[in-house]
Amino acid sequence: MAAAAGEPEVIRDKAAMRAWSRRQRAEGKTVVLVPTMGFLHEGHLSLVSAAAAVPGPVAVVVSIYVNPSQFAPTEDLATYPSDLAGDLRKLASTGAVHAVFNPPDLYHRGAAVSGRRAEAPAGAAASSCLEAGGDGHETWIRVERLEKGLCGASRPVFFRGVATVVAKLFNVVEPDVAMFGKKDYQQWRLICRMVRDLDFAVEIIGSEIVREADGLAMSSRNVHLSPEEREKALSISRSLLNARTAALNNSNSASEHIKDQIVQTLTEAGGRVDYVEIVEQESLVPVETIDRPVVICVAAWFGKVRLIDNIEIHIQS
Amino acid sequence: MAAAAGEPEVIRDKAAMRAWSRRQRAEGKTVVLVPTMGFLHEGHLSLVSAAAAVPGPVAVVVSIYVNPSQFAPTEDLATYPSDLAGDLRKLASTGAVHAVFNPPDLYHRGAAVSGRRAEAPAGAAASSCLEAGGDGHETWIRVERLEKGLCGASRPVFFRGVATVVAKLFNVVEPDVAMFGKKDYQQWRLICRMVRDLDFAVEIIGSEIVREADGLAMSSRNVHLSPEEREKALSISRSLLNARTAALNNSNSASEHIKDQIVQTLTEAGGRVDYVEIVEQESLVPVETIDRPVVICVAAWFGKVRLIDNIEIHIQS
Repeated sequence: MAAAAGEPEVIRDKAAMRAWSRRQRAEGKTVVLVPTMGFLHEGHLSLVSAAAAVPGPVAVVVSIYVNPSQFAPTEDLATYPSDLAGDLRKLASTGAVHAVFNPPDLYHRGAAVSGRRAEAPAGAAASSCLEAGGDGHETWIRVERLEKGLCGASRPVFFRGVATVVAKLFNVVEPDVAMFGKKDYQQWRLICRMVRDLDFAVEIIGSEIVREADGLAMSSRNVHLSPEEREKALSISRSLLNARTAALNNSNSASEHIKDQIVQTLTEAGGRVDYVEIVEQESLVPVETIDRPVVICVAAWFGKVRLIDNIEIHIQS
Repeated sequence: MAAAAGEPEVIRDKAAMRAWSRRQRAEGKTVVLVPTMGFLHEGHLSLVSAAAAVPGPVAVVVSIYVNPSQFAPTEDLATYPSDLAGDLRKLASTGAVHAVFNPPDLYHRGAAVSGRRAEAPAGAAASSCLEAGGDGHETWIRVERLEKGLCGASRPVFFRGVATVVAKLFNVVEPDVAMFGKKDYQQWRLICRMVRDLDFAVEIIGSEIVREADGLAMSSRNVHLSPEEREKALSISRSLLNARTAALNNSNSASEHIKDQIVQTLTEAGGRVDYVEIVEQESLVPVETIDRPVVICVAAWFGKVRLIDNIEIHIQS
């Protein structure tokens, strides 16, 4: 556990951020990064606590950056909530954050090349809220198997944007350790795979989901739920807990049966299901029977808000 | 210029390589990486000289690794020449190389997941000599605009493999500076763009083409040319030099005319042209008239050997 950090230093420049990290490491500290998109809640603060609990002297950096490249043009970038002043207050109150990295932008935007704009590449399948063209950003990291399925099926640019911005943050902050919440389960597993495949010198720690007292998984998007929608959304955690109980009480449960029950619960509550999947914990390959460690992943709409949640089931094969 | 380095240390393990680099940096040295696929010639050794000439105390690392992921299954991975003992002798004789990184493999291969192999992702367009599947390597870096055109048109997996292996080498070796030869012009520009877009803390230095006395650009693949093919292949450098003279003597030359003359020269010499293109030096966008700094890029087959070459023309717009 580190000494109290007091007021975190706010850094907005990439070079200054890297220099800060290198100074910390030269002083023998482990640099721990907590990447966020801001509008912080108890889930984020639990990541900060876990960061501060990394053994030895640590320098904890929280990045706050709403990454445009992980949003499709049809998605909610424009309405994604933000409250930088509130975030800084919350982080200062933890006494565990040494720096906040809050860059105005992380990408090269598409200035014209030699007085004209280059064409978008032919066959470019994906497009995001990051403007591309000219000599703008054009380098993308794809984790080709894990980015498909689950959230990747309905959000084709999402994980391309996540993997790319996380790689950029790793190259700017140069952390020794980075914290990811298991609420974004597919994201966590995908980042682990990217780190392995590209040999990033970063240890990834996955942190448990933090829930409201009534079971709702914490999310910055919860603020957009009406009181009625919020009540209905409790069907997510309730159905996941019931599914786990059923799977633990019956060996070799059929996934199809468990999934059907979750879909029924969500639908009866007034939700619109995006997906319910039961998959292996590391590979995210769907299983037919629950006879090994799995995770049940859910995405569902309540009103205009898309929520995700999941529950791990530690059955040994 | 660094002090004489003597016999370079040969490092085969990723973790040992990273630890070596970090020790060098802690001692105040600039770590300079020269990535190669081995079978070294004077072109590579000129990169080593340029690396040693980086200002201040330097630690020069030459990596030797034939990267399977940049070869298509139809290409010449199996016959790519190698001579590790000779390479080590040449590097030792420079007195400028401190370490050689020669890993047996850089990739995670596709071990089965939970007793079976995962399917290759649907719609996976590209496939290389790197076996994929199971929990094998699945993370790829694409520089989406620069990877198309020129060599990318006939070698669709090439730059995906190059960008990915270079990122891995950067993450393992953690160099401050990396040297690339301008003979692989598109590769050099693409790596510069990847470094900019992903915020790698690596300065890229492009080094001039080294030619045989008769003009042939040095390449490890030249060894596969018969004496007759080698003679015919001189048409490449000859036609590029003539093209540059023509462009410098006539303002606003039409690219089409210049390209036609090169194609004619190569064809008459018995070569089979893959492409001849005149493009802007940084964006690699084709130009219609030579009224700004451009590079003429050529790829042509002589017998079973595909050769590339290029020439920069520094006309100011």
